[in-house]
This record gives sequence, C-alpha cells and structure tokens, in this order.
Amino acid sequence: MKSVLSYIDANTDRYLKELGALLAIPSVSTDAERVQDIGRCAEWLADHMRWIGVQNVQIMPTQGHPVVYGDWLAAPGAPTVLVYGHYDVQPAEPLDKWTSPPFEATVREDNLYARGASDDKGQTFIHLKAVEAFLKTKGALPVNVKFLIEGEEEIGSEHLEEFVREHADMLKADLVVISDSSMFAKGVPSICYGLRGLAYMQIELVGPNRDLHSGSYGGSVLNPIQALSEMIAKLHDTKGRVTIPGFYDDVRKLSAKERAAYKKLPWSDRKYARDLGVGALYGEQGFTTLERLWARPTLECNGIWGGFTGEGAKTVLPSRASAKISMRLVPDQSSAKAARLFERHIKKIAPKGVQLSIRSLHGGEPAITPIESAGVRAAIEALERGFGKKPLYQREGGSIPIVVQFKKILKIDTVLLGFGLPDENAHGPDEFLHLPNFFGGIRTVAHLFDVLPQFTRSGKA
Amino acid sequence: MKSVLSYIDANTDRYLKELGALLAIPSVSTDAERVQDIGRCAEWLADHMRWIGVQNVQIMPTQGHPVVYGDWLAAPGAPTVLVYGHYDVQPAEPLDKWTSPPFEATVREDNLYARGASDDKGQTFIHLKAVEAFLKTKGALPVNVKFLIEGEEEIGSEHLEEFVREHADMLKADLVVISDSSMFAKGVPSICYGLRGLAYMQIELVGPNRDLHSGSYGGSVLNPIQALSEMIAKLHDTKGRVTIPGFYDDVRKLSAKERAAYKKLPWSDRKYARDLGVGALYGEQGFTTLERLWARPTLECNGIWGGFTGEGAKTVLPSRASAKISMRLVPDQSSAKAARLFERHIKKIAPKGVQLSIRSLHGGEPAITPIESAGVRAAIEALERGFGKKPLYQREGGSIPIVVQFKKILKIDTVLLGFGLPDENAHGPDEFLHLPNFFGGIRTVAHLFDVLPQFTRSGKA
Repeated sequence: MKSVLSYIDANTDRYLKELGALLAIPSVSTDAERVQDIGRCAEWLADHMRWIGVQNVQIMPTQGHPVVYGDWLAAPGAPTVLVYGHYDVQPAEPLDKWTSPPFEATVREDNLYARGASDDKGQTFIHLKAVEAFLKTKGALPVNVKFLIEGEEEIGSEHLEEFVREHADMLKADLVVISDSSMFAKGVPSICYGLRGLAYMQIELVGPNRDLHSGSYGGSVLNPIQALSEMIAKLHDTKGRVTIPGFYDDVRKLSAKERAAYKKLPWSDRKYARDLGVGALYGEQGFTTLERLWARPTLECNGIWGGFTGEGAKTVLPSRASAKISMRLVPDQSSAKAARLFERHIKKIAPKGVQLSIRSLHGGEPAITPIESAGVRAAIEALERGFGKKPLYQREGGSIPIVVQFKKILKIDTVLLGFGLPDENAHGPDEFLHLPNFFGGIRTVAHLFDVLPQFTRSGKA
Repeated sequence: MKSVLSYIDANTDRYLKELGALLAIPSVSTDAERVQDIGRCAEWLADHMRWIGVQNVQIMPTQGHPVVYGDWLAAPGAPTVLVYGHYDVQPAEPLDKWTSPPFEATVREDNLYARGASDDKGQTFIHLKAVEAFLKTKGALPVNVKFLIEGEEEIGSEHLEEFVREHADMLKADLVVISDSSMFAKGVPSICYGLRGLAYMQIELVGPNRDLHSGSYGGSVLNPIQALSEMIAKLHDTKGRVTIPGFYDDVRKLSAKERAAYKKLPWSDRKYARDLGVGALYGEQGFTTLERLWARPTLECNGIWGGFTGEGAKTVLPSRASAKISMRLVPDQSSAKAARLFERHIKKIAPKGVQLSIRSLHGGEPAITPIESAGVRAAIEALERGFGKKPLYQREGGSIPIVVQFKKILKIDTVLLGFGLPDENAHGPDEFLHLPNFFGGIRTVAHLFDVLPQFTRSGKA
C-alpha cells in the first residue's frame, strides 16, 4: 500500500485540477437546456476513466440521461465492488448567493467550492482516483470494480431501476459502495449502514355533500376537519408511540452493540433543539433521539387541508378534509404491510357521519447492511486507516431508493461511505467539499480495496 | 280591517305589476358598474313611497349606496314600528341558468321569478303594500311606521352601523320588523325570534423553524399538524360537548315552552341527513337537531392547512400548521368572553415543542326577542290571521349583524317575519317569491299594524 498512498500524496494538486475540470461542466439534470452539458459531462467522465485504466468504459443510453459504465475485473477470486455515483447536479440558482462562480471550482481555506463538489461529482471522483492510484503504481487492483455513474439522480433516478433490471448480469457484485452522503460531523468519519423505508398515504373525509354555512348548520353534522383531527390525534398515544395495531410487530430490535455505538456519536439534544428552534423534542419514549431517527418507525403528517384557508373569517362548515400521512419504516417492516395496517386502522377509527377514502401514494422498503457483515467491517477498517481515527456507526432516517433497488434486484447490500459534511450546502449556494475529506476519502477507498479480500475470505461481503 | 283586506284583494294584479317594475331595475350592489341602477332603484322606491302616502321620504347618502327613508308618524300614543329592508340585489350570473330573464319578473305556477323577488325587494314591498292598503282606505295607520331601506346589504351593510348611530333619534321605535328570511317551510308560517352570535378565531402552531425532511427528522420533533389535530380533538368530548371551561356558563336554558314549540315544527332527522348526504347526524347529546342548531352554542373548524397539499408524496415535516375555528353563540353568551375562554383554553392545551399564536378575526353577539314580548305575540297573532294557520316559533343558527346593531344602538328588539321559502334560490339562478306568501305577507303585515297596539298596551313591545 505504501506506493499507492505515496502516489495519492504526490498527486493532490493534479487531482484537484482534474476535479475542477469535471465541476466546470454545468450538468444540471433538472434543466432541459443543459442536455448537451449532460452529454459533455458523461463524455468527460468516460474519457477520464479510460485514461485511468478502467476497462469496458461505455456511455449507455437510457430513456433519459445516459449512464456511464466501466469496470476492472482482472482480479479473479477477489470480491467485486459496484461503485454507484452520479454526474448530474442541482441547479446553481440563485447565482448571486454564491461567493465564487458555481462552475469555477475555488479553494477557500480547507474547502473546494463548486456546484457538485460534494453532491456527487467530488465524491464519485474519490473512487476514480483510488482506482487510478492502484493502476498507475501496481497495474492492478486487489478487487474487481464496476462503476455505475448515472445522470438523473437529482431528478429522481427515473430510469435507473429499469437500467439495473436490464443489466443485472453486468452489474453483479458482492458489495455496493456509495459515496453520496455525509459523515456524521466534521472530523467524525462514520459509516451509514441503515436507511428507513416509507409508506405514504393520503386520506380524505367527506361529510356533508356540499360546503355548508357554519351558522345555519353548525351543531347538526360532524365537521370533517374535526373528524380528521380526532382521527389523527388517535394515531399516537401519550408516550409518542404509533397506535396502529401490529405497527411495531416486525421492527428489528436495536442490538446492544448498535445502542452502544450511537452513544459514542457526538450529540447534544439541546443543540439539536436549539438549531431547530423548538423548546422541546418529541418522540417515542424509551429511545434516544438518534435511535428514534434511525432505528424506530414513525408516523408523520406531511400535509393537511380543508375548508377556508384564505384571509378573513368565512363561516363555512366544509364538505371535506384531507391529509397526507406517511410512515417511516425500519427493518424488518414492509411498506405494503404498513400501508395495509394503516388502512385497516384508519377505517376502524373513522367515525359515523363521514365517508373515508384512502390512497397509497408511495412506498419504499427499509434497508440495512448488518454491521457484522464483511463489507461494513472492511469499510470500518478502511475508514480508520484513511482518517487515522476510529469511525463511528450511523444510520440515516430518510430513504435512498437505489439502495433498496440494488438489494431487491441484485441482492447486494450497500455500504454508504459518505465523505460530505452535514453543512456542505449540497443543494444550495456555496456547496463545498471539505478537502481533508476528499483526500482522506481517496485513501479510505484505496484501503477498502486493499482490506476487503481478507474480510470477505471469512464470509459473504 | 275589512276594507283594508278587501283593498289588498282587489289590487293583487297591480301590486304584482308594480313589483315587476321594481324588480326590473338591476340594482346589483356588488357591481361597481351598476351604481346608476342603484340610484335609479332608490329613486323609484322613494317616488313609490310618496305616492303611497309615506311622509318625509328622502334618499339619504352614506359613504356607499344611499339609504331610502320614509315614515308615517300620525298615530300619537300608538307604538312605532321600524321596518328594515334592502333594495340592492345579488348579481344574476350565471345568466344562462335562468329559465326567464332575471330582470323580467315572470310568473310561473304560483311563483314570481326574478332576481330580488324574495331577497329582498319582494319582501320589502310587502310592507309598503300593507301601508298603502291602510292609507288608501282609511287615510291613516293604527301604528307609527318608519322605513329604513338600505342599498348595501349584499355587500355586508358596510355603512349601515354608522348610519344607524348618526340617525339614532330619527330611527327611534318600539319594535323592528325585518322580512328578509324564510318561513320554516312552504305552508308553515313561522316567526324567527333568535339568532346565534359568533366568535371567529385563527390559531397557528410553529414547530421547527423550517420545513424539515420527514425522513431525516421524523421521530425527533413534534409535528405541528399532529399537535394541531390533537388540540382540535380535545375541543369536543365524546358527548359532542365543547370542552372549553366556562363555555356553557352563560347559555340561557331553553324554556319548556320553546322546546315544546320546536317539537311542533315539521322535521325529520332522516330527511335532513339524506339531504346533506350524511349517514349520521352529530352534535351535543341531550338536544334535538333544531335545539342544537338554534339554541345551543357550537364550535366548528372552518379551515385547516399545513405542510404539503399538492399532488403526490412530498416528504415534509412542516414548520407550521393553522386552523380557523369559530364558535356560534346563543344568549346570554358574549363574543368577547367566548374568545377569551377559547384563548385561555387553547393556550393551556398547547403542547411543548410548538409555539402558539391566536388571533380573533370576527365577533358578533347573539340576539333573542323573548317569545313572551308584545312584538312576538303580535306577530304570531298577525301571522295566524294573515295565513289562516297557527304559525310556529323558530330561531336561526346564523347571525344577522343588523339585528345586533339595532339592539345595541337603538335598544330595540327585532321580529324576523320571513316570507321567503327555504328553497327560493335567494342568491342563485331562478330566484323566486312564492305568491301565496307575497299576498299572505301583505295581509299579515296589515294585521300586525292592526293588533300591535292592543299587545303593547299590556307591555313593552
């Protein structure tokens, strides 16, 4: 590894310059007028991968923006890593809020500022540079590597699932590694091994068949806003638990090891509450905030509406009221079952005098990569070597659909190796990549390639 | 009375023709381009009143449309009746929904169709024709009469309160009579002696200081939609009663006589529920539907909003949620006190983790004219003579601000002598006045003038 690490150290300036060239291409996928830049960016990446020594590099069309694929598979018997990333970026507007132009990468202090610096060109580039360090010094990698770099992440990865399905053989691997997220905090390298799933519902209550005058009719029929409020109020008990029968049945218990690991993370409820501007936190009793965010399912109202919502005092007793309500799920809950339990319970608690309709709008499964798995253990080891510091375990409260798709279609677990920072302005002005994380990331990925075989030898990735 | 009633019977055709001329003037107060028609209508009315023999007729300016005033005060010692009405009308649009042109009064079967036929030109005209019948046959009235006919009722009577204040002496009377509402049902003459008041509030809850991702943050902070729902759910108990402490303290109990009177009204909960399309009615236990609508206070949510309300599944944990909540009040509740009790209770039940703000948007007092009062007793007697049928007592669940203003400023009770029908399309296409009610109304008002002195002799109007 010495020569590989020396190569990385010797080439930092060039790495940065190359990343600057990649960041200069405004590959904004949300903007139909940028379609040529998207194509130009895919070309640039493909050329660069070829120069590094990645093989079978191709720009593969989808119904939308193309995928850039490449691999290096000359390590027979060694595990195969599928690296996922994306080369499209968010719009840079509002431009006047940027300190330096968004498509001219600029170093200030320890950070590199540009749109895409962290999300996700910079983090994808980390993997390419680690591969380069091996191929340019040793002519070979200790593992097989496949790159899947898409151009539609910022517009919902609309065509990726189909692409993965159609190219399942080509994408076969032992482990997916994604660097498209953040470490827990600056100076706190961490590995994210779990994501929550989602079951997103919409309910509507219809009371009287028309909007009524609240004076002439108030007191005679059930107001659908009142009915809806009373139903929503019934969905949590006084301990902050969701009251839907069976809701917690399939929740995988936090292991003692996980609870201990979360306790090690630098965290302050007080600081968190202050940052959000709330006087008190809220949630399921018996769990810490991080446990609630990562390892416990929740139910949230995402929207509510009904009756008169303009200025002033219209005296209406409305005909209908609606709410969007979603559940965040954890292993081993399933989205379809959560939706079913919700529907059954909501039907049960709907009062007489209103008609209920329920729609399931969206679903996604939770995902977890066991922390005892070879992939996670190797990533932990690599992070410690790359950053000179024991990394911490974390999960994430949201969902990353592609992780679930990889699991579902390719049957592979994902390790989320985030090198961003929580405050890196991923979708806002002055997005940046912290340079110690960029170079520490390249070293980490190089170590991951190096140590992965010895971990997989003892078990599945 | 014989000659008066014969005069009415002999002149029905002319009465109808004259009303047709009044209805032909499109005095739409909501339409700025109709301001000349408004003026023309006031002139027509004033001229007609002069022809009838009403004295001191004048078109009195306000900041908005003018008031038409006239009186006949040559019955010293007799009570004075203030007749309130309005000569402005709602817009007639959509015109293509009218069977006959809205400003060409047309008789079909027993009804006269035109904009304003019932609301309120036709009902105001009833009083003028009763006065005419006396003056043209006897040259005198048994009571003193004052007419206050405004031109801004359909736009909220914006300048009327000021007008009443400024002309309190001129408007002094013993009883106000208003015919601008409906009888209970076709063939069921009734007298409305009570109206509910209003206290209209708006509350807002702010949780986190920004909209959050419901995946990344769900489970850690109180969702303001959930908080709002839980608060609204606490405002009614399982018996449909409002839980605000002190809310019912000032509610005047229904007398046995009133309860008995309501029971006489033709009413079917089943038909009412079917008409509204609800499977069950709802309200405070221990009271009939009519009692709840007329004589019990209620609390209704008029609007609610928060979070994402568009199409689809946006995973937001919103920063804020709001609701409009109004209370309908009955004697002897006061709007200010209800607002105060609401505010105190809402503050008490607001949970930690959200910031609450409360606004009072609108208030109005309840009104009641005791059914034992001379005015109500005289009106009951007059209705029985006018329609040949014992009339019934009713109240109305809504508010009529002018009734409260007459009480507050002039200290006079109002008798609501509605000659419309509940289905007369007051603000819609094909508005009509039921002709038996028009002629029965003229006879009733004539009888009211006739009998009122003997009732007031025994007590205050």
